[in-house]
Amino acid sequence: MAETSTDCDTETFRENNKVVKNILFIMCDQLRWDAMSCSGHPSLETPHIDALADRGVRFNRAFVQGAVCGSSRMSFYTGRYVQTHGARWNQVPLAINQVTMGDHLRKLGVRTALVGKTHMRADLEGMARLGLGEGSDEEFFLRECGFEVVERDDGLHPETRGSSELAYNQFLWEKGFTGKNPWHSAANSVLDENGNTISGWLLRAAPYASKVPESVSETAYMTDRAIDFIQSAGEERWCLHLSFIKPHWPYVAPAPYNDIYRDAEIPPPNRSSEELADQHPVLHAMRHSRIGRAMSRPDARRLVIPTYLGLVKQIDTNLGRLFGKLKELGREKDTMIVFTSDHGDYLGDHWMGEKDWLNEEIVRVPMIIVDPRNAADKTRGTVTNKLVEAIDLLPTFVESLGGASKEPEQWLEGESLIPILHHDASTKRSSVISEADWGFLEMTKYLSGVQVPRAARATMIRNDRYKYILSEVGSNLLYDLDEDPNELCDRGDDLSMRTIRNDLHEELFEWFRHRRHDSTNNDLFMQMTSAPGSAARQGIPIGYWDEQELEAGLQGKLY
Amino acid sequence: MAETSTDCDTETFRENNKVVKNILFIMCDQLRWDAMSCSGHPSLETPHIDALADRGVRFNRAFVQGAVCGSSRMSFYTGRYVQTHGARWNQVPLAINQVTMGDHLRKLGVRTALVGKTHMRADLEGMARLGLGEGSDEEFFLRECGFEVVERDDGLHPETRGSSELAYNQFLWEKGFTGKNPWHSAANSVLDENGNTISGWLLRAAPYASKVPESVSETAYMTDRAIDFIQSAGEERWCLHLSFIKPHWPYVAPAPYNDIYRDAEIPPPNRSSEELADQHPVLHAMRHSRIGRAMSRPDARRLVIPTYLGLVKQIDTNLGRLFGKLKELGREKDTMIVFTSDHGDYLGDHWMGEKDWLNEEIVRVPMIIVDPRNAADKTRGTVTNKLVEAIDLLPTFVESLGGASKEPEQWLEGESLIPILHHDASTKRSSVISEADWGFLEMTKYLSGVQVPRAARATMIRNDRYKYILSEVGSNLLYDLDEDPNELCDRGDDLSMRTIRNDLHEELFEWFRHRRHDSTNNDLFMQMTSAPGSAARQGIPIGYWDEQELEAGLQGKLY
Repeated sequence: MAETSTDCDTETFRENNKVVKNILFIMCDQLRWDAMSCSGHPSLETPHIDALADRGVRFNRAFVQGAVCGSSRMSFYTGRYVQTHGARWNQVPLAINQVTMGDHLRKLGVRTALVGKTHMRADLEGMARLGLGEGSDEEFFLRECGFEVVERDDGLHPETRGSSELAYNQFLWEKGFTGKNPWHSAANSVLDENGNTISGWLLRAAPYASKVPESVSETAYMTDRAIDFIQSAGEERWCLHLSFIKPHWPYVAPAPYNDIYRDAEIPPPNRSSEELADQHPVLHAMRHSRIGRAMSRPDARRLVIPTYLGLVKQIDTNLGRLFGKLKELGREKDTMIVFTSDHGDYLGDHWMGEKDWLNEEIVRVPMIIVDPRNAADKTRGTVTNKLVEAIDLLPTFVESLGGASKEPEQWLEGESLIPILHHDASTKRSSVISEADWGFLEMTKYLSGVQVPRAARATMIRNDRYKYILSEVGSNLLYDLDEDPNELCDRGDDLSMRTIRNDLHEELFEWFRHRRHDSTNNDLFMQMTSAPGSAARQGIPIGYWDEQELEAGLQGKLY
Repeated sequence: MAETSTDCDTETFRENNKVVKNILFIMCDQLRWDAMSCSGHPSLETPHIDALADRGVRFNRAFVQGAVCGSSRMSFYTGRYVQTHGARWNQVPLAINQVTMGDHLRKLGVRTALVGKTHMRADLEGMARLGLGEGSDEEFFLRECGFEVVERDDGLHPETRGSSELAYNQFLWEKGFTGKNPWHSAANSVLDENGNTISGWLLRAAPYASKVPESVSETAYMTDRAIDFIQSAGEERWCLHLSFIKPHWPYVAPAPYNDIYRDAEIPPPNRSSEELADQHPVLHAMRHSRIGRAMSRPDARRLVIPTYLGLVKQIDTNLGRLFGKLKELGREKDTMIVFTSDHGDYLGDHWMGEKDWLNEEIVRVPMIIVDPRNAADKTRGTVTNKLVEAIDLLPTFVESLGGASKEPEQWLEGESLIPILHHDASTKRSSVISEADWGFLEMTKYLSGVQVPRAARATMIRNDRYKYILSEVGSNLLYDLDEDPNELCDRGDDLSMRTIRNDLHEELFEWFRHRRHDSTNNDLFMQMTSAPGSAARQGIPIGYWDEQELEAGLQGKLY
């Protein structure tokens, strides 16, 4: 079984190079890979995130497995592709047999705690079928995606969830804000120039400041809870998942962040008129749906993007606070820090808004890892273009915290990133996969030919040069990212690229065949079963002619 | 939800054509599709099975989903393909989230009982993870594949299992047989002409009679338990799974069945010298493994097949007893009878023994259904060549017992056979799928190039004319069953058939993509989520510009 280190003082952790003591696993929601200064944004400044990149490795080509919060996050939390864990979109429950980050890390003696969002829906039907009543640890973890809940905030409907999610509303009430759900009516609403309240859900609210001051905003509050946790945990080992809702909608920032980038340079939209005329049924429906139309309006980007950037800036500032506290506590030396996002935001690129499709704007995410161990010194400050996936984080965590990276091979589908972090070594991965299930979107109703909602999906495979999208509705798509890094020209019907498409199609087929659905099986068991003489020794001597043969078989001499 | 009929008297069941009262679900183990007189065997006589065919529909092209007991049975019991349920071979546990026949039928108020074999291994690790302690109904059903256990007999190691499996040994002890495991030392061992005991596992034992008389043999004993159950159940509704071990190895029959077919005509072996020279790595290894070599010996078929036929004859005779009792109790009129098998037996065909590969000898099975309702009168005595699968039985049962056939669509992957039984109607199915995982076999050790045991598998798609086998090791195979019904000529490298192979390859890819791994999801939920205005009404009004748009959205007028 996994090695559990009990030798936990900080210097040992740093110097023995074997394990890290803690992991601070930070996730933003809907943060694009290019919305950081270290990844080249022309006006946004994120010095604290950039400082992480200076101290660690920035993965410039990191991809999430799902094109929407729920499916993407369940891949982060289970280390498995969407096709394997099955929670294909928001609100699709995570089946009770799925093993989570908490299951893997608690075995190593590590508290696995949550501050913020998981977007996980519990499989209540599955729990009821097994008679799992309330009150046990197991039942709690099944409800909370395997995490010990310090603070849960899915950023939606806090009033309809359990008490664990009421805390931020309670905090706002204590600060004098009123109403049934001040998460919405105060923190995510604004006052216009006439003093009228506008719901932050409406795009026209974006330029105004939130009704709450920065110090009581959701981002600041969650950062405070993370600091509280780290302080109170003392010398216990932990993996803390600090999971911000922002810069996800509602696009509402507290002062001064609503205004900082109001007049800043924002890159021109990545879109072409040819795209708008494209008749691919799925892309056409997305671009002409309400969200696509809204974010394609000439004024939309100017309205929304400065607020979006302000929200990122606010996260960066709060991370500065958090990292300062980590240093003050001496935890910087023994804590691995991971910074990433669950997916991006079209923000009008490709004439789309939101997410749910497979362009780089959505499935390519920020990913920075700071490994405090000496073994990682030689890669500090480097940027790698190696293709990595969200599911690579959990095996990285298991290995870093002292587990055997390959032990739970029937569960984890990713690859530990330690070889890259320690040696800039190459990995087995030559392509990445993402999945998009758009059949949950309202546009589906207006798209003919979708007989079976669950077939309204697409699967992307992307290697160093090409991105191929197998679309269950409409034609398949291909982009040559060397020639067309902005994905403006679909080569799905280019005869000269037929072999490339066929090869990627076949690679995807192979990927589908080898998902680890057979989670009760594993290679070790198969090797034991197929060992010469194994069946005979278990009392199932099939196909032996006589006693002499059986004796030879029992000794493994006859197969 | 499903309709539950409380109106259970026999005449109502027969005449209202809505539901059947009970289902007698009989399964043999390792019974080939052609080992019945009604399917054309030249010497075997199975009058009681033939009588079922006269009263119902015989499915002449019925296929199992797995090429070995465990995986095939889990497909029967879950209504899902092997790729979906994940229990890919014997002893691979059925994951706790898999919903079984018992789950589906108990909801309809139907006792779902077992007499005999399931070959199911419980997912003890999964149960422990959820803290499922002993003693609850849920825990019992998880351990017993969803069945109420009247008598469990997996035909192996009864001495090492729980008390539920000791019953047959107990019975043998009471009859005066001794030893730790009289299942083996008495019922499945023989006395040779010199009075020496030979273990029935050894092929050389096949011609001798079992040490126990027929009346206390395993087949007779299980038939008795089924009769006991039906008598004691009275007017309760039930689905009884009577699951014989035979004619599975050990090839031991009690007198006189060991001798009835000793000199009978047995069909010549279905094999060619070209096959023996075939260098396909998997087929070569199978043919040259111990079991392949044993069953290829000139004397093997003459030794084993008469015993195999005798075991089938014995089952037929016992079924005659059972059907007589059913008639006597009046249950014949309100009970659907299903007769099938979990897979076949090579018996030396293709120079192979046992199973674990995808020829018709293995994956094509007997399937006869007698539907007692008037609605089925016009198909009685017919034989259909429509392609059907083992997973079609569970939706047939659900519908026949009064459930909505489509209700649990996220669970069931088959298609109800009622349209065929009542109208000889066509179905959606144009091909069938079977999967073989040979990486558990001892031959694997001697086969180079198998780096990952779990990749040692193959998937078959078969339509009316062709059978295509995608083999993860070695080349893919193709048979033209019109020109080569005996599958003696692999056309996998025939250039003229490239388009046919490509089309079947692509059809398999589509099949892999659409397995129902996302069992917590369903089309109804997707339709609700994608309804116009649905997200806004749930408090997530994404992409609305202003109050006017939101109002239109809430009313479903804007998408």
